[in-house]
Amino acid sequence: MNKSLFITFEGIDGAGKSTQIAMLKEYLESKGCKVLLTREPGGSNIGNSIRGILLDKSNTAMSPLAELLLYYADRAQHISEVIVPALEDGYCVICDRYFDSSYAYQLAGRRLDDSVLDTLNQMVVDTHMPDITFLMDLSLEESISRVSGRGESDRLELESLSFKERVRHGFLEQAKKYPQRIAVINAMQSPNAIFDDILARIEGSGLLK
Amino acid sequence: MNKSLFITFEGIDGAGKSTQIAMLKEYLESKGCKVLLTREPGGSNIGNSIRGILLDKSNTAMSPLAELLLYYADRAQHISEVIVPALEDGYCVICDRYFDSSYAYQLAGRRLDDSVLDTLNQMVVDTHMPDITFLMDLSLEESISRVSGRGESDRLELESLSFKERVRHGFLEQAKKYPQRIAVINAMQSPNAIFDDILARIEGSGLLK
Repeated sequence: MNKSLFITFEGIDGAGKSTQIAMLKEYLESKGCKVLLTREPGGSNIGNSIRGILLDKSNTAMSPLAELLLYYADRAQHISEVIVPALEDGYCVICDRYFDSSYAYQLAGRRLDDSVLDTLNQMVVDTHMPDITFLMDLSLEESISRVSGRGESDRLELESLSFKERVRHGFLEQAKKYPQRIAVINAMQSPNAIFDDILARIEGSGLLK
Repeated sequence: MNKSLFITFEGIDGAGKSTQIAMLKEYLESKGCKVLLTREPGGSNIGNSIRGILLDKSNTAMSPLAELLLYYADRAQHISEVIVPALEDGYCVICDRYFDSSYAYQLAGRRLDDSVLDTLNQMVVDTHMPDITFLMDLSLEESISRVSGRGESDRLELESLSFKERVRHGFLEQAKKYPQRIAVINAMQSPNAIFDDILARIEGSGLLK
């Protein structure tokens, strides 16, 4: 392999993103890749401060537009300080959540205007698109059951059921919009079965040569 | 007086905004107004957390676009949580810095693209324009001399001289763009002479009836 790759993982909470990201990192390293794991929000020092504001459950008065702008401030910093330099340095970058999450949580979840989101996305993400995105899809019931075992919830995890249903639907809409880039993975399977699907997609993509 | 008023103060550091804001508050209250003093960044609880990130001088790696988005996240929250409810409740709102500062510091100072700023401003500020803006103008030499007596400086106060010169010029460009709204005040005068100019403008505006 001689190419840097930009891979993102998306999905509602409890989909098992962290497990798959760790497995994919090990696989790519076994193939000789340098791998950088990162996440949104919070993939930079400044982003970590922004993440603190976004997930603080005492911030119940946050306006949907302020929330969206905070996510994009984090993203702008993350792209310029972390993602672009790593890709230029030949890394495979695996990012836990990226702009598809904004379409799912802010557009579908908060029902913000899509022209506002499209404008911000063009301004900040521009050409920095992932090569492959894995959308880990699972039922709302399974998501809630898995997350409930984790202990205390953050501001977004405390949202209503109807919000979470809109978010899941928003992710699936993104997958319809970008069928070449986004692979929908059935996250109800065992971790090994999920990883087989991920590998099949990566190996079939022709991106690893 | 039976009308809520939205008044903003702008200018480079050391222009004496705080003194004039306190004098104007006392004057308006003597006329029977309810007055709310606020500021940007940091006019809301969430905004105060954002202000902490913006002024933290260890955040030297902040990208110009991330910085701009943080200011507008603060502004979106401030408008929806503080400014609009206060104006609707009949308050005179006096705000220490508002969107003209973004045009001076981010557009003129950081040399960001003006279409990016216009787009964000339209998205966030929209129709929430001040009734009057006082631009406190003074020479760069005087600004530096006044600020140097204050003790430790924040991230923006530590910028270069050429940056500060562009910021001052950027404010004056805003005043040319909005001659009806923005009153340029000579801040090299004594506090009482400055306040006389401010009162003359307010009383001549016909806004206080």
